[in-house]
Amino acid sequence: MVDVPQLVEQARQGRPRAVARLISLVEGAAPELREVMAALAPLTGNAYVVGLTGSPGVGKSTTTSALVTAYRKTGKRVGVLAVDPSSPFSGGALLGDRVRMSEHASDPGVYIRSMATRGHLGGLAWAAPQAIRVLDGAGCDVILVETVGVGQSEVEIASQADTSVVLLAPGMGDGIQAAKAGILEIGDVYVVNKADRDGADATARELNHMLGLGESRAPGDWRPPIVKTVAARSEGVDEVVEALEKHRAWMEEHGVLAERRRARAAHEVETIAVTALRERIGDLSGDRRLEALAERIVAGETDPYRAADELVDGVTNGG
Amino acid sequence: MVDVPQLVEQARQGRPRAVARLISLVEGAAPELREVMAALAPLTGNAYVVGLTGSPGVGKSTTTSALVTAYRKTGKRVGVLAVDPSSPFSGGALLGDRVRMSEHASDPGVYIRSMATRGHLGGLAWAAPQAIRVLDGAGCDVILVETVGVGQSEVEIASQADTSVVLLAPGMGDGIQAAKAGILEIGDVYVVNKADRDGADATARELNHMLGLGESRAPGDWRPPIVKTVAARSEGVDEVVEALEKHRAWMEEHGVLAERRRARAAHEVETIAVTALRERIGDLSGDRRLEALAERIVAGETDPYRAADELVDGVTNGG
Repeated sequence: MVDVPQLVEQARQGRPRAVARLISLVEGAAPELREVMAALAPLTGNAYVVGLTGSPGVGKSTTTSALVTAYRKTGKRVGVLAVDPSSPFSGGALLGDRVRMSEHASDPGVYIRSMATRGHLGGLAWAAPQAIRVLDGAGCDVILVETVGVGQSEVEIASQADTSVVLLAPGMGDGIQAAKAGILEIGDVYVVNKADRDGADATARELNHMLGLGESRAPGDWRPPIVKTVAARSEGVDEVVEALEKHRAWMEEHGVLAERRRARAAHEVETIAVTALRERIGDLSGDRRLEALAERIVAGETDPYRAADELVDGVTNGG
Repeated sequence: MVDVPQLVEQARQGRPRAVARLISLVEGAAPELREVMAALAPLTGNAYVVGLTGSPGVGKSTTTSALVTAYRKTGKRVGVLAVDPSSPFSGGALLGDRVRMSEHASDPGVYIRSMATRGHLGGLAWAAPQAIRVLDGAGCDVILVETVGVGQSEVEIASQADTSVVLLAPGMGDGIQAAKAGILEIGDVYVVNKADRDGADATARELNHMLGLGESRAPGDWRPPIVKTVAARSEGVDEVVEALEKHRAWMEEHGVLAERRRARAAHEVETIAVTALRERIGDLSGDRRLEALAERIVAGETDPYRAADELVDGVTNGG
């Protein structure tokens, strides 16, 4: 038996093993999941959640690590959730990054957690917000969520942050890639990392153009800043923190932060509800009902819509 | 009022406007959608569905066009469903490709349809199988489904084909990209296009290695062939058709074709059912129930799971 109240209390005290245990319970959809979530509810809502996304190779891990250092200097407790197969946290990256991050490993004010990407749609989007909740409830002031910027589910995760940072690097054709993945639309702050390389100014200009930042905006509108950094040497990182704090202040002033959090919670609830309903369908297919319907469709005896009606009836009427 | 039986009859006769109309009804989730699907059910199951996927720039459209020509030579009726923002069919590609495809536009034995990618998860995966059903019911012998090979939803669409073709081109780092997107696992046939370029042999070798094609397999197992093509000059395209026909024969011999179609139908039904249930949740949020729950979560008064329980109860008990 897991003593959930004790675990939550230990997590509040900043014990990393308790935090790790809670996230594992959440991630693995353990029987205690609901008890954990209920216990955390009154403790959440304090963390500032920053999403960082970008193509592989732009320096997300290095930037994340530099941001951790910057926030630690101001005494903040920092949580890092790395949702990235190429991240050092999940073991796929360069030794340099790993060493870089390991300096934070011994800091009790930093909690680092990696999360493997799941194979099915919605899987990750479902687990990440719960892990964020654990870090929030454990007293993190800032949570950095690092995701690799390809695919819809990563965009979805990034959209669950209070502030989304999109990273680019010169000469990687990132502009096009980013536009394709739809991540250009989600940035509140843009970072052109590796700004000591050729083409950094061109990348910033291209970005400025693509985002229409030169155009006039209504007063009070947020104009996403483009910050140039060399994260490996911590250059420009304080400016990123400054941009983040400005965005946060702007959101609070305009009621955007509360609105984003409501939208995030609504999305979270909907995802969980849909997952639960999907599971009920899965239970139905346990008695071969789904398989039998599929056979009838292949045989041309019914169509997918009539078949779906039967499934829905089965779920909603307990049939 | 739409006369669905008449439209279906005209589509059977190969009238492109009727086919276009049916797909539009299906894509737009028109009120007639269910009637269309019911009318098509007994007419489907004859088409051989081939999925083609790969990164932008590998020559998917050119290869698709060359395959259309090859199949037309054997008198087959061919449907093309292009699910790709960079495809000529949806207007984003090079003039050369457009001209190339336009030769088929006047051929009554070819039906070409583009499909825009949707913004939300599951949207496209939901519409594409229905469009395939229309083309199948309209009497296409072969349906080529061209998708851009990035992201989970494209992989999902490709997995709904009878045979999946993964395209690569030399010198694009495609191996890594493909592995990342998970598309390397889905290929039944691999095509290294632009094989007249430097590095084609290296790409084929790398692919051969990554797929473990050098390793021994159980007798009767399918060993995905790697075909080198220069689609722009139709070189190797007959070999691709041959590989497709071999795969189809192998699937029929081993009961794999029927199994894949059953799995596809099951997935389709499940997707429709989940979408229907999601819509019911959407209806609930119409009366601000979801919003109210979200506010209570943000305030720490409840957690997402308890909130989701309320939503699910509302859906399943009509509450």
